[in-house]
Order: sequence, then structure tokens, then C-alpha cells
Amino acid sequence: MTTVGIVGAGLIGTSIGLAAAATGFKVLLSDRDPEHIRVAEDLGAGQEWVVSETDGSTPVDLIVVAVPPSSAAQEIRRALVQWPHAVVTDVSSVKSPVVEKVAGAVAVEQLHRFVPGHPMAGREMSGPRAASAELFRGRPWLLCPTQATAASAVATVTGLVEATGAIAMPVPLALHDQMVAVTSHVPQVLSSLMSARLASCNPEALAVAGQGLRDVARLGASDPALWRDILTSNATEVLPVLREIAADLDVVLSDLDGAAEGERIEQVLRTGNQGSARLPAKHGGAAPEYAEVQVEVPDSPGALGALFLAAGDAGVNLEDVRIEHTVGRLTAIAHLYVLPEVVESLRTVLAASTWRLLD
Amino acid sequence: MTTVGIVGAGLIGTSIGLAAAATGFKVLLSDRDPEHIRVAEDLGAGQEWVVSETDGSTPVDLIVVAVPPSSAAQEIRRALVQWPHAVVTDVSSVKSPVVEKVAGAVAVEQLHRFVPGHPMAGREMSGPRAASAELFRGRPWLLCPTQATAASAVATVTGLVEATGAIAMPVPLALHDQMVAVTSHVPQVLSSLMSARLASCNPEALAVAGQGLRDVARLGASDPALWRDILTSNATEVLPVLREIAADLDVVLSDLDGAAEGERIEQVLRTGNQGSARLPAKHGGAAPEYAEVQVEVPDSPGALGALFLAAGDAGVNLEDVRIEHTVGRLTAIAHLYVLPEVVESLRTVLAASTWRLLD
Repeated sequence: MTTVGIVGAGLIGTSIGLAAAATGFKVLLSDRDPEHIRVAEDLGAGQEWVVSETDGSTPVDLIVVAVPPSSAAQEIRRALVQWPHAVVTDVSSVKSPVVEKVAGAVAVEQLHRFVPGHPMAGREMSGPRAASAELFRGRPWLLCPTQATAASAVATVTGLVEATGAIAMPVPLALHDQMVAVTSHVPQVLSSLMSARLASCNPEALAVAGQGLRDVARLGASDPALWRDILTSNATEVLPVLREIAADLDVVLSDLDGAAEGERIEQVLRTGNQGSARLPAKHGGAAPEYAEVQVEVPDSPGALGALFLAAGDAGVNLEDVRIEHTVGRLTAIAHLYVLPEVVESLRTVLAASTWRLLD
Repeated sequence: MTTVGIVGAGLIGTSIGLAAAATGFKVLLSDRDPEHIRVAEDLGAGQEWVVSETDGSTPVDLIVVAVPPSSAAQEIRRALVQWPHAVVTDVSSVKSPVVEKVAGAVAVEQLHRFVPGHPMAGREMSGPRAASAELFRGRPWLLCPTQATAASAVATVTGLVEATGAIAMPVPLALHDQMVAVTSHVPQVLSSLMSARLASCNPEALAVAGQGLRDVARLGASDPALWRDILTSNATEVLPVLREIAADLDVVLSDLDGAAEGERIEQVLRTGNQGSARLPAKHGGAAPEYAEVQVEVPDSPGALGALFLAAGDAGVNLEDVRIEHTVGRLTAIAHLYVLPEVVESLRTVLAASTWRLLD
């Protein structure tokens, strides 16, 4: 039986413990906060692991360092030094600063056993009480081996990753932080900047808030302390992207402020069109273009379920669904996505019944 | 029969024509572009209306000016002057500059017949080909009467609004532009700024793009020419909000750039939490808090439909649904929202079958 030692029993560490314990690993848990350990143990995420400064005797095959980015390097170094035979991985959402600090603090031979990792999962709640054995299922778990990392160590970590149901994705270490800066960290900043404007705006304005504002502001509910740590840890990669955004914003501001007719604003908007078009299709490159049917759904109990039943009774497979809520909760609009060859029969069946199609 | 004259047969004008024609109005359409008229006529949105500089003889009860904000005032003025008995409304997403220009150009008595309006509907496509009779159904249609506007004129416009299936919402004229600045125009700018960063970023980064980036960047596909017009027309209200965002962004930049530990970044993020919490619940104030069940959905035909059928068979009404796509299209995660009192029976039924619950 493989023994996994988890350092940090927060949301991510406890969730890894739950998933590993459920799939036959022996799990040991350590945390500075005894309450975290008590909760994680109660949930069945593993058993307490008291790590002293000198102890390296507990047999551990794999150590997962699941602490915030700013403390990660120190804990990784300690794990590599105290357990000279264990594979060590971490879950920091920023990788280069962590790897550089570790590389500067341990011998090269010890780096063979270190596999930098980043499970792309989380939720708006934090702490072990929010943990779930299923947090990682279907999610990408990025692995960024260094030049010194042994293939066998990657295989060990991949075994744990797959046990959690996540999808192990190799990503070049040199690219990782740049990738997450633009796809995760900068979107968080912009969403928080938008949300901050809602803290003091006219309450009547919020009453007409539509889906556009909701989408842009959704990440505004994220944990400030964690994101402060992530953003400062990845400042090197986040800064240039935010500076480009500040420069574009300056263009918009100066065009709006003066006698300009907005030509440069239009250019920024056009570049936005180009970027938007580069986002891969939701279903991946091989997926067909789905056809869409919009249906009005009354706000009455069971209406949504009845719509899905009607589609099912018609023998039409729904590939995707999006519900758009309207102001005043009188109705919602269901966007149903189906294969193009069945869209006409879906339209016909729904229209023949009481459903009102919106396009 | 009420005759509606529509000036501008683009997406909005043609959609209004379609909805009005379908509900018994006689619809006349004018547009500078004869191709627009031809398409709109073919769709059944009304018949061509040739408006000469001097002609006011065609009997028209209600004129809808559906041109971009920068041309709206001129067309509204002409309509009020040439048809001295018609009620006139417009669809501009910016109201004060339009109303001020109109008020400065016509006699006060003529203003009795002017009802500033703003249907909050649209789509990413533009032009009459994208028009739909159902574009406005369930959407708010803001009406901002001036002090001079007659109640009878508001009633006439409300009749058309309700015929399209939209929900007429009175909004104080003085508040309108401020409301849409923060809830619509600034989100558009931020989404475009984010999307513009994707125009030149590493293609590998886009491969790990998650729902967060997709949500923030979704509006990046909007029409640049139209939004240039909207933003410059509402510069007075958009500027102060964008300046506050620029100031917060400066705080983030300077904290990331120096030796600061991110305390001020955390403050911006916390203010974002406060703003985020002010957004009304999707279903309106009276709605219960729904309980959520996350279910893994394999990417195989019919899986999503089968899940909805399973919930229906269990007698559980789905109040809302969100589909979250995972990287590599192996699985999706369905978030099902139900009334709290039925959540346990939904869990039990799904878990007893082959469904894998994720929390």
C-alpha cells in the first residue's frame, strides 16, 4: 500500500486525502492548525501525522505539499530533506518562484524526486470542511517536471492524480506561470475590479443587471487572502499582462475624455474580437458545431424538467444546456444545444406542444 | 389597426417589426440601406416606407427610431416634426444625450409625444438577417419618460412593448445612463480588455482556459462599431466608473511591482467580495436558496438527456441547471439546482443509479 503524506489540510489537501483514502492509499495528514486535522480526520481524509523537525522515520512514499504558494518552497524543501526516499509534489497555482526557491535550497540529486504540480480545481469556499473526494474529477491537473525530475517520480504522482479522477496534463515549467497569468490570474483581477464597482453603485442599477455583468463579475466572490498570495507570487507574469490592459484602458479613457470620436476605442474592441475568436470551442476541436434552440421556460415548478423530458421523449440528445434568467423572474430562456441533424425535429416537437421557441 | 413606422431596419428595428407585424400592427420600415429593407420585407417585418424630407402624409400612429445612439436625436426630431400627431420612441442604449439634443431642437409641446425607450435585448450578430420576433420576450424594456412626456404616449409605447413580449420597466431618465454604465457598458469594456489579451497570448495557454476566463471574456465578441458609438455617447457616465477601475488597477500594479506584500491588493479583492454580494439572486428576492447537486456527465450521446430524465423520473423539479465543461472533453459536470427539501431524494436516486455525484 502506498503511503501519502499531506502537508496542509485545507480545501485542496483534505480533498486529496479523501480521494486517496477512498482509492486505497494510506493517508497521513499534517497541519499547523489542530482543528484542520480534527475536521479532516473526521471526514475520513486520513490520520494525523505529527512531523517533528528531526523525524524522518515515518515511512512515506509520496508527500503532497498543499499550502499557499508563499509557504510552499519551504515545506517542499523540508519534505525532500527529511524524507530522502519520498517523491514530493505540490499544488501551488504558481510554479517558477516555488521551483527556483526549492532548487536553490536542496542538492540536485534531491530534485530528482520533486514533481511540481497544479490541480486546476477549487471552489469559492475554503478550508477542510469544504473538501470533497470528487473535487478533482474530470479536471486538468498540470504537472511541470523540472529538468532534474525523474520519470519514475512523475509516474508516482500521476498514479495519485489518476486516483483522484483528474486528468494529468504535462505542461512545460517555463510556460506554466505565463499560461495561468492570462487564463486565470488576470481574469480574477478584472472580475474583482468590476465587482468592486458594485460595492457602492446605485442599488437600482443592480436591479437591471443582466447576464453580461453576472458573467464578468462572477469571480469577484473569490477568497481575497488566497488570491493576494497567488497574485503576488506570480507578479512577474501577471504584471506585463495587467500593464497591457492598463495601457488599453488609458486609450479608452483618453478617447472618452476628449474630443476623439472613439476610433481607438473601436480598435481595442476589434482586438477583443480577435482574442475572443481564439478561445477554443467548449467541446474541443473535434466536436461538431452544435445547433441551438432557445425556448421560453415559465417560472413554474417543474417547467425546466418538463422541457428536458419533452426533448428526451422526442428522442433528441441534448449536448449542452444554458439557462438564461430574465429580470423579474417571470420566465427564463433555455438554450438547448443539439447535433445539427436533429435540430429540426426538436423544433417541430417542441413547437407542436406548448413550448414557445425564441428564434 | 395601429400603424408603426420603424426608422432603421437593423437587428432591433427589424425584430420589432417582426414582433409587431405578428401581433396585428401595420408596420412600415425605412432605412438608408435598401438591402436592409429588402431583407426585412422578405422576413415579413413590414413594408417599405419611403420617407421624403417633406412627406408627413403617411398616417403613422407610432414611430420607433432604431438607429445607433449618435444618429438617434436627429431622427427623433425629424419624426416629431414631420408627423405632428405620432407618438415617437427610440431604442438607444444611452438616453440623456439623446433626450437633451431632442429637447433643444423641438418645441416643448412636441416633447409630449416623445417616450425615450431602451429594450435590453440583443445578440452578438447584427443586421436584419439576425432579427427575431422573439428577441424581446421576457426581457426588460426600459421606458424613461421626460417631464414633458404625456401619459397617453407612454401607454401607446407600452402597448407595443407588451406586444413584443417584453416587460416594460419605468426608469428615471436621470438614472438610466448611470445604471447602464455600471451594469452594461463597463462590463463590455472589461470583457474586451480581457479578450484583447487573448489576441496575442501563447496558444498553449488557451488550451487550459477554464470557465472563469470564458465568463469574463464572453462579451469580447460584441460589435465594435456599435459599442464605440454606445461608449462615446455615454462617456459622461462611463468615464467616472472606468477611472475608479483604473485607480484600483494602479493600486494592484504598484503593489505587484514593488516590495509591497499585497495588502492593498487584498483590499481591492475584499471590496470585490462586497460588490459581488450585492448582486441580486438570479431568481429575484422572493426565491428560495436552491440546493446544488454536482453530477459527472460522460461525453457520450444522450448522457445529459438521461441525467435530466433520471431527475424527472425521481419526481424532482430542476429549478436551474449549469453545465461546466472540462478540459479534453472527457466529461462535463452538471450543476443541478433544486429546492432544498428534495435535494436528498435527488442525491439518493442518482447515486443508486450509475450517476457519480461530485460533492
